[in-house]
Amino acid sequence: MTALSRRTLLAASAATAAAGVLPVLGSAPAGAAAPVSGKQGPGYYRFKIGDYEVTAVNDGTWYRALDDKFVRNAPLPEVQKALTDVFLPTDKLPIPFTALIVNTGSKLIALDTGTGGQLASMAPQSGTFAANLAAAGIDPKTVDTIVISHFHPDHINGIKTKDNALFFPNAEINVPAPEWTFWMDDANMGKAPEAAKPTFMNARRIFADIAKDVKRFEPGKEVAPGIMSVAAAGHTPGHTAFTVNSGNRSMFYIADTTNNPYLFVRNPDWQAIFDMDGGMAAENRKRVLDRAAADKTLLHGYHFPFPSSGYVTRTAKGYDLVPVMWAPM
Amino acid sequence: MTALSRRTLLAASAATAAAGVLPVLGSAPAGAAAPVSGKQGPGYYRFKIGDYEVTAVNDGTWYRALDDKFVRNAPLPEVQKALTDVFLPTDKLPIPFTALIVNTGSKLIALDTGTGGQLASMAPQSGTFAANLAAAGIDPKTVDTIVISHFHPDHINGIKTKDNALFFPNAEINVPAPEWTFWMDDANMGKAPEAAKPTFMNARRIFADIAKDVKRFEPGKEVAPGIMSVAAAGHTPGHTAFTVNSGNRSMFYIADTTNNPYLFVRNPDWQAIFDMDGGMAAENRKRVLDRAAADKTLLHGYHFPFPSSGYVTRTAKGYDLVPVMWAPM
Repeated sequence: MTALSRRTLLAASAATAAAGVLPVLGSAPAGAAAPVSGKQGPGYYRFKIGDYEVTAVNDGTWYRALDDKFVRNAPLPEVQKALTDVFLPTDKLPIPFTALIVNTGSKLIALDTGTGGQLASMAPQSGTFAANLAAAGIDPKTVDTIVISHFHPDHINGIKTKDNALFFPNAEINVPAPEWTFWMDDANMGKAPEAAKPTFMNARRIFADIAKDVKRFEPGKEVAPGIMSVAAAGHTPGHTAFTVNSGNRSMFYIADTTNNPYLFVRNPDWQAIFDMDGGMAAENRKRVLDRAAADKTLLHGYHFPFPSSGYVTRTAKGYDLVPVMWAPM
Repeated sequence: MTALSRRTLLAASAATAAAGVLPVLGSAPAGAAAPVSGKQGPGYYRFKIGDYEVTAVNDGTWYRALDDKFVRNAPLPEVQKALTDVFLPTDKLPIPFTALIVNTGSKLIALDTGTGGQLASMAPQSGTFAANLAAAGIDPKTVDTIVISHFHPDHINGIKTKDNALFFPNAEINVPAPEWTFWMDDANMGKAPEAAKPTFMNARRIFADIAKDVKRFEPGKEVAPGIMSVAAAGHTPGHTAFTVNSGNRSMFYIADTTNNPYLFVRNPDWQAIFDMDGGMAAENRKRVLDRAAADKTLLHGYHFPFPSSGYVTRTAKGYDLVPVMWAPM
């Protein structure tokens, strides 16, 4: 039996490259060539937490140009090294968006809502939430409750369609009170840096005409059956995480407590440009990751690689994400 | 702003657990509860290798009881520790099955064929290949070429339906010549241990009535346009891997060169019970992983966690798998 050798394999590859497209061995079969699809499979993933059925619904990926400002407190070459370590390109950082739908058996609850297809000019490969939700067999009309983690556009824009209609027309909308207080305050908008003003304006675009119907909750309260809110500020002033609890099982939806885990789980002190209070964000991130490592808590991160759930382990310099193994139901 | 504390979070979880299902805050909305689905999303995943479109098609997962015989040369507690490290249960090992369909633009090529739903008594959560292929929009009638890595049932049974019909009726079937020579030889079957006889019988069930149409190739040859076979014996006497090459891109389908990577990529000297020549399998495994780490080769492993592609890095005691980040096309 010939054992595989490096030389054999390289020779094989070189031969193929040199020969170009060679005829198939043997006679040509009758089958017609199927057209190239060009389409990815549906981005949804199901799992159980106790009696609850959870569906992770992907809203695409933002390939953000990686510059020396993206991580505020680390040199660009170190950031690029962290990406090279996991075989990612160093010029663009993939930032996936993945929200959760929790079916309690009697209530359907959306934890964040995606971009609503309204960030396509910035992120052309985003905006797949509605299609993935449909593929998952979930009619937005059947969603009872929306729970928002914070007011960044990739989390709240999906409350509405591009035409300003409610995407989930029957859902009660719940937002963190401190987040509302901060972003809807005109004085805060007035003194904000120019770069932040669009986020204030966007929050008004989404919420102004439905303000009277938006419920504001204080972090620490239960916001839906079995779903507890947990203050986790820093990323934004009212950024909130959520535990999902059913039977004796639970998980922790940490929203934007960390962005791409290959950077910010592995290096929890690094501060992303999106973290408004970078120091507080890092402190809360380390608290969450430390506790999750100790308690073996299942985490879902909005910007983790789809299906965006996993566990963390401690490492010498921080933590590492162990993604869940994709599994049948 | 209240910072997240361990105490806060534990208190929140405890409150939820104690309270059971509490009413939703605010008034009940009009939406009807959607039924629990109980179904996983389609298990297929697309990516490009040069001009080729590759579709990974999952055939489910075998949850195999983990006993002290599964890894021949490591104590069970060490194997269990390796699973605990990645938050997997220690009593059953998840062994996913994921084959590849390569669309060259003019030919559709299946690299292995799944279980054909014929291992359901052993692995009730297997047999989803046909449904996932349909979800991917691929009609088995349009597959031109089947290329087999080795004759274990989870790789060849999908050539046929449960009723012994050809599942890919127009496909030319290509198998490694040394694999055919070994498994179809009655003398080998006669002297094989009892536990191995069903594998010989199964190969006859699949191939006996179509033997004249089965093409046998010598490892090292091109078996389809851009697809080179590479001898990688040990797992079985004729086990074969394949490079897929298009333009200046390539990947390496390593089939069963490693089983579950959390065990055998991390500990490449460990020998799975399925490895017929454990020593040779380990030698070839280390060669493949070492070269892949050095060359940053994209690998697809039939038993890797879906979508079953990734890169490997060297570690102190072996290698580690860095799974691809799920991405839109």
